[in-house]
Amino acid sequence: MRRLNVSLAERSYPILVGAGLLSRPELIQPVLPTARVALVSNTTVAPLYLDVLAKGLEKVGVDVTPIILPDGEVYKNSESLNLIYDALLASRCDRGTTIIALGGGVIGDLAGFAAATYQRGVPFVQIPTTLLSQVDSSVGGKTGINHPRGKNMVGAFWQPKLVLADTDTLQTLPDRELSSGMAEVIKYGLIRDLPFLKWLEVSMEGLLSRNGELLAHAIERSCANKAEVVAADELETAREGGRALLNLGHTFGHAIETGIGYGEWLHGEAVAAGTVMAVELSRRLGWLSVADVERVRTLLQSAGLPVAAPNLGADRYLELMSHDKKVVAGNLRLVLLRVLAQAVTYADAPREEIVAAIESCCNG
Amino acid sequence: MRRLNVSLAERSYPILVGAGLLSRPELIQPVLPTARVALVSNTTVAPLYLDVLAKGLEKVGVDVTPIILPDGEVYKNSESLNLIYDALLASRCDRGTTIIALGGGVIGDLAGFAAATYQRGVPFVQIPTTLLSQVDSSVGGKTGINHPRGKNMVGAFWQPKLVLADTDTLQTLPDRELSSGMAEVIKYGLIRDLPFLKWLEVSMEGLLSRNGELLAHAIERSCANKAEVVAADELETAREGGRALLNLGHTFGHAIETGIGYGEWLHGEAVAAGTVMAVELSRRLGWLSVADVERVRTLLQSAGLPVAAPNLGADRYLELMSHDKKVVAGNLRLVLLRVLAQAVTYADAPREEIVAAIESCCNG
Repeated sequence: MRRLNVSLAERSYPILVGAGLLSRPELIQPVLPTARVALVSNTTVAPLYLDVLAKGLEKVGVDVTPIILPDGEVYKNSESLNLIYDALLASRCDRGTTIIALGGGVIGDLAGFAAATYQRGVPFVQIPTTLLSQVDSSVGGKTGINHPRGKNMVGAFWQPKLVLADTDTLQTLPDRELSSGMAEVIKYGLIRDLPFLKWLEVSMEGLLSRNGELLAHAIERSCANKAEVVAADELETAREGGRALLNLGHTFGHAIETGIGYGEWLHGEAVAAGTVMAVELSRRLGWLSVADVERVRTLLQSAGLPVAAPNLGADRYLELMSHDKKVVAGNLRLVLLRVLAQAVTYADAPREEIVAAIESCCNG
Repeated sequence: MRRLNVSLAERSYPILVGAGLLSRPELIQPVLPTARVALVSNTTVAPLYLDVLAKGLEKVGVDVTPIILPDGEVYKNSESLNLIYDALLASRCDRGTTIIALGGGVIGDLAGFAAATYQRGVPFVQIPTTLLSQVDSSVGGKTGINHPRGKNMVGAFWQPKLVLADTDTLQTLPDRELSSGMAEVIKYGLIRDLPFLKWLEVSMEGLLSRNGELLAHAIERSCANKAEVVAADELETAREGGRALLNLGHTFGHAIETGIGYGEWLHGEAVAAGTVMAVELSRRLGWLSVADVERVRTLLQSAGLPVAAPNLGADRYLELMSHDKKVVAGNLRLVLLRVLAQAVTYADAPREEIVAAIESCCNG
């Protein structure tokens, strides 16, 4: 088992990565203030993993209230949140109850936001079961739900007490979702870790064949990179750089997700195509070479990810991007690459270059 | 103008108390990160005070988006919260937008929770226009909404950047609401400030006739007392005492509010009758004298408050009280008085004494 620490003063917490962690309740028990948990999962994950976790916890004397939600990004909304509140209140969960999220990013975001807001905040434990959630949402404390007008428009920062990333759960993950998570893994290399980027280029085949040791290494490196960024800028208040750098490809990517409707593309797929746009724009600004862009495109493709975006029209892209939370007082601030493995936030890209980058990366 | 500081490390903020503050935008402007505010108010307060505030802000170059909600505790719910989110998104408010609450406790709680959760948190300014909200919800950072199963079951801690308590707004407050606020003012004397309690006993007539200087003193003393308690226990995590002491009369009071339906009794009225129950229970435990109980009852009555509770039956009271957030792992923890002006949290009151205290304080 690998162990790393996310350093956030009194909100610091450990991430444990390895095989077979779901059946080790003794890892969870020490962080519970009372012997009471609400276990939030979905209809896909619960049949696979809820029993082993719940039975283990019950065996050590913990009372478990399961809360099972429908599966999918379309359910990351206020209705699902209310289902959680209703279940917590119906079973009289109090402020000492710990909410455990067992599932992917949607479950983590929903359960985390419920933990942040139920009775003004209860303890939270994350057990992410997808690669994407293990490398992305398990670090940083972002929780929230979508609004019809945009992704993650309602939410809170709420740090977990513990994250368990059990690599065994990746064995049942559909190929498309494994690739989707790989988009975020690759992102860490691209924004700040050249050795990791090189390691990914030579290890992608083994990762996609789900070698447990390779996956554990990729998760650990990803979380360590994210933890360093988050520790320096917990609430995303840095004016330049900081947490915003984690959004490489995301402003374009969110526009793709919103523009074609949530759920058509997976998050990582949209981020992959968005990353190509950001990299292409970086080239147009004179920061990357044609070879750099090709190298990024090749790595994303080798991970089974799309490198061309749906053709919504550049105007529609710009309109959707202007809704992004990263837009402060009207200024479109993008994450771009000065060189490979060195990301920056940049608000001065000329509109015509943004349009050209979008158009050159769209299908058809 | 009086000024006091709520000390919460980097979340510290000032409270300004005095007459005519609404028409002084220069007091607000320094805390705004961008020249953009959303002004949340209700249909009762907006016609009286929104214009002077909005016009003043606009005159100094601040863009104001008004969001007007229906008036009443029954609207402190997820529907009103969604109205705020919708309006913020429709007018493209971003993370630099400051949400200003102009109204009583309901508006403060709703707008504060919207500020805590819109795009994972935006700056917040409170302009409470009722005595209750000026002395209670303007200090402490509690925000939230009600759930059909209980008050304030969903919420967050979110500190304002600034609180403006304009005593002029109390001139238009209905008598019943002025009295309701006085229940919380009296509470501060009862739990920790004997000189203030004595001052209230001799000043109540002048306070009810709305003498501005007396009101400003009562607000300042109340906020100073609350600020000291909150500074020592920001997140209500103290095992004994701490913020919980501010809930004198509230566990009984919430049972009254829930038992007869929100909105029938004002919050302070329920707290007043609940305070009599808590004081009577303290006497039954041998901590207060009959004369002490009479003294409390007399002061509350002189403030125009009820001192007898609706007769819901003791069993119903106990059932409702067991839903209270202050119940940790099944234990009914009450705030009682060891002596006048010295409150304690106490989990060991015998059930039969609680029942007797409830029954002796009920009408009929």
